[in-house]
Amino acid sequence: MSKKVGSDIEIAREAKMKPIREVAGKLGIKEEHLLPFGHTKAKISMDYIKSLKGQKDGKLILVTAINPTPAGEGKTTTTVGLGDGLNRIGKKAIICLREPSLGPCFGVKGGAAGGGYAQVVPMEDINLHFTGDFHAIGSAHNLLSALIDNHIYWGNELGFDTRRVTWRRVMDMNDRALRQITNSLGGVSNGFPREDGFDITVASEVMAIFCLSTDLTDLTKRLGNIIVGYTRDKKPIYARDLKADGAMTVLLKDAIAPNLVQTLENNPAFIHGGPFANIAHGCNSVIATTTALKLADYVVTEAGFGADLGAEKFFDIKCRKAGLKPAAAVIVATVRALKMHGGVAKEDLGKENVAAVKKGGENLARHIENVKKFGVPAVVAINRFIADTDAELDAVRQLCAELGSEAIECNHWALGSEGTEKLAHAVVKLADGGSNFKPLYPDDMSLWDKTRTIAQTLYGAQGIIADKAVRDRFAEFEKMGFGHYPVCMAKTQYSFSTDPNLKGAPSNHVVPVREIRLSAGAEFIVVVCGEIMTMPGLPRVPSANHIRLNDKLEVEGLF
Amino acid sequence: MSKKVGSDIEIAREAKMKPIREVAGKLGIKEEHLLPFGHTKAKISMDYIKSLKGQKDGKLILVTAINPTPAGEGKTTTTVGLGDGLNRIGKKAIICLREPSLGPCFGVKGGAAGGGYAQVVPMEDINLHFTGDFHAIGSAHNLLSALIDNHIYWGNELGFDTRRVTWRRVMDMNDRALRQITNSLGGVSNGFPREDGFDITVASEVMAIFCLSTDLTDLTKRLGNIIVGYTRDKKPIYARDLKADGAMTVLLKDAIAPNLVQTLENNPAFIHGGPFANIAHGCNSVIATTTALKLADYVVTEAGFGADLGAEKFFDIKCRKAGLKPAAAVIVATVRALKMHGGVAKEDLGKENVAAVKKGGENLARHIENVKKFGVPAVVAINRFIADTDAELDAVRQLCAELGSEAIECNHWALGSEGTEKLAHAVVKLADGGSNFKPLYPDDMSLWDKTRTIAQTLYGAQGIIADKAVRDRFAEFEKMGFGHYPVCMAKTQYSFSTDPNLKGAPSNHVVPVREIRLSAGAEFIVVVCGEIMTMPGLPRVPSANHIRLNDKLEVEGLF
Repeated sequence: MSKKVGSDIEIAREAKMKPIREVAGKLGIKEEHLLPFGHTKAKISMDYIKSLKGQKDGKLILVTAINPTPAGEGKTTTTVGLGDGLNRIGKKAIICLREPSLGPCFGVKGGAAGGGYAQVVPMEDINLHFTGDFHAIGSAHNLLSALIDNHIYWGNELGFDTRRVTWRRVMDMNDRALRQITNSLGGVSNGFPREDGFDITVASEVMAIFCLSTDLTDLTKRLGNIIVGYTRDKKPIYARDLKADGAMTVLLKDAIAPNLVQTLENNPAFIHGGPFANIAHGCNSVIATTTALKLADYVVTEAGFGADLGAEKFFDIKCRKAGLKPAAAVIVATVRALKMHGGVAKEDLGKENVAAVKKGGENLARHIENVKKFGVPAVVAINRFIADTDAELDAVRQLCAELGSEAIECNHWALGSEGTEKLAHAVVKLADGGSNFKPLYPDDMSLWDKTRTIAQTLYGAQGIIADKAVRDRFAEFEKMGFGHYPVCMAKTQYSFSTDPNLKGAPSNHVVPVREIRLSAGAEFIVVVCGEIMTMPGLPRVPSANHIRLNDKLEVEGLF
Repeated sequence: MSKKVGSDIEIAREAKMKPIREVAGKLGIKEEHLLPFGHTKAKISMDYIKSLKGQKDGKLILVTAINPTPAGEGKTTTTVGLGDGLNRIGKKAIICLREPSLGPCFGVKGGAAGGGYAQVVPMEDINLHFTGDFHAIGSAHNLLSALIDNHIYWGNELGFDTRRVTWRRVMDMNDRALRQITNSLGGVSNGFPREDGFDITVASEVMAIFCLSTDLTDLTKRLGNIIVGYTRDKKPIYARDLKADGAMTVLLKDAIAPNLVQTLENNPAFIHGGPFANIAHGCNSVIATTTALKLADYVVTEAGFGADLGAEKFFDIKCRKAGLKPAAAVIVATVRALKMHGGVAKEDLGKENVAAVKKGGENLARHIENVKKFGVPAVVAINRFIADTDAELDAVRQLCAELGSEAIECNHWALGSEGTEKLAHAVVKLADGGSNFKPLYPDDMSLWDKTRTIAQTLYGAQGIIADKAVRDRFAEFEKMGFGHYPVCMAKTQYSFSTDPNLKGAPSNHVVPVREIRLSAGAEFIVVVCGEIMTMPGLPRVPSANHIRLNDKLEVEGLF
């Protein structure tokens, strides 16, 4: 821990990247199956992916976390560190991550490609336009928007109620001015004025669809199934009614192929797709994950937010739909974050406080129990910080041992794979021991009961409540034939409850359902339990103010 | 002419493309200086471009045209055909074209990568996302937009008058619903409601800046110079006041490198940048053109619309600013279009009408004379159609001969380079004969007189008129220190006058100036003479309805 660690961008710049064809070569992928983007990024051809069909699958490891705090827990960093650790101990392992969103880069300083000596590179490219996937998704989304208003303009044969157009527009930018707008102003030649708004691209249903599709045919079908609005007598209008699905697919045909990059230690990483973790399921693409499973013995992936949201949706939506069987889970915790869950104020986090660690440990304990409820064995990774004391670490270890789980100290941020060797061995043992994965609820349970089951079983809630209008919507979606879809919970990431200030492991709270939304193309029902922001804003001093090229034409201020 | 020619996409699919490194190799560019995008597209590294500085320049050939008609004249196709023709007769030649805009692809069927046997490939990629340049330009533009409203939201220290924010937003989509909007609705947390709107990305001033910049330093300076709005006492606010220029440059740092692709005959083509030809100058990037001049003996490029707009702006804006000396110009004409200029109705175009050709020839004659006024020698390329008769072609030849120019029949659409061999020889002779290029007006002429000079000298107008408010703006921009900028004329492309129905070579008309706009970053003053549309709409039956992947996963319906 005494090694001096530079800034993320300094470390990334010193990286000795290998040509991407060499990284692919280690996986047995020939150069002809790669579509290079520069020399250190490539897409893997869909034809090659198809040819892998008969091959045996590797083991899938989920990296998840306790409820996050502003202190941070390092989930992506641990995912990268574990992937490097597995390769270090001689295993063939691939990391699967989400692509970062461009917009937030210009708000608060910091990228989303790991940190310290556990990063994926080229980190600047990954955080900026990368291979253009999000731009393609934004284009496909906004083409559908344009086709809706164009249809209304030319006569509205499908009978859109312009008050009930549910399809908004998107932009990959933090731009609060676009949250709520009126469009089509300015007279006859510009259409029929109506209320509208923009979400950030990662919140698009096209993004969720992109990440859940198994191939281009499935993608087209799902795009066609998007409900874009309703008629005056409330009949749904689909994207396929506008004949939009074909052109949207054409815009996405290249993006759908997974992106291959490397870690600082030259191990392979797939970074592909990045749906919001609140109104969507928050995991990288199914195509990337299933491809990685064909090419490696161990695939390490992560899900957004804490395990209450991220792991639950990974298991109940992604794994259920894609037929994936996770072999083990890693729950990331930090002593600092546990202390915050234990009630310690931010300014006191530097002081040893074993009691607070134990108290905050309730949060970790419930996540461990929850993961096991899915039949998946779990290990805890303690992402070590310099100020953590041995007594504090011992407290975490003891807590986990009481629950039959191991807690392992990790130092990947400072040491790279050397810092996760022990974790890697533990994960291999766990994953090779077998898992009994099953989703939390069956498809044929009612939507209300699915929601209640999650709230009671995982959140420790007494139950769920909702206004009559919302309860009617549950019934309505079932009547429309969508009752067999899984639910996609949207609530605060900071607590098991819907109150972000309720730390630890609250019990007997009630989960109020404010609203439910149908994502008919993504094939889930979004259950909104609290304020959900789908278009962020920029801070008073955005990092954009400091981002620039220096004299050597290197990017400054982004990280 | 008896050869059966398939559809553009059929021909493009049969193309035997060479790996892009081989195409680059022919130009002496080593693989290490390429940034590949797949196997048939690449960007050329900026470091390599810098290393070419001391090398001798090749000769620059402009392809321009008569005033276009719905019958079409084939300017891009002729540019590609001439490039192939020059290579065929043993010359080292590169083609420089604009990148097509994505939005229009979903409106009316048809791409912008040439046609028949004179195309650039891979045409689907070029017409869709290509190497992501336009997405990068859109992101940079919209980041600036977000920073403006964010600045106002957090206190408006710079004192924006929210009625005088001149910077709009952009999207690469034909979407009339976004032409005029109100943003920041919905209450305190969304900002201060104001009127706003979107242009298509190609109409962005960032696009014009991108295409006129000589390197990244120049780009940053120009981005900082953009005027985004005014205070209540009408003082300009610049992008650099918002500290936006650095982050915008970072978003454009990869896009700035020119894109290399190939023609159907495997000859090199640079396709880079694509500003609107009305409110901007309508030519590919300066960086692509200057790089091509270092690598080839002949560089063939085109400018948007007819020579009254395209060639004038190419000479007076691009060549003036970038220090380019065009060696020759090719004016493209078709017998069909000349007949339309001669008054023939669309349904009668199939019938021989020598008198109409002669009458419509007035349009061609004035363009020939105009080009010569810039000191650039010109040759006429007659893009031959099957229905054209020998008598009609003779009439064109005679007309040109009287003006001291040659008119050469071209069959590149059906025959590729075989059909432009004669044109290629004529162009070489002309270009090697020397040119006396000079812009039409000096920098220090007043903005009003610059406009008047263009209208009288090139358009055949009696003069220009404008309301007092508009005349005051001329004076205002001069007082602000922008009087030395060139003017960028925005008027209909269909006539020398501002009336699209006035065909042929009208005289003694008056050009009314409706409005002038300052593009302080692009460094020109846009002089608007008529309705200018900066956000197109989609037609009743958009081609998006028919665009899809077929069973072989090939794109259908795009071309």
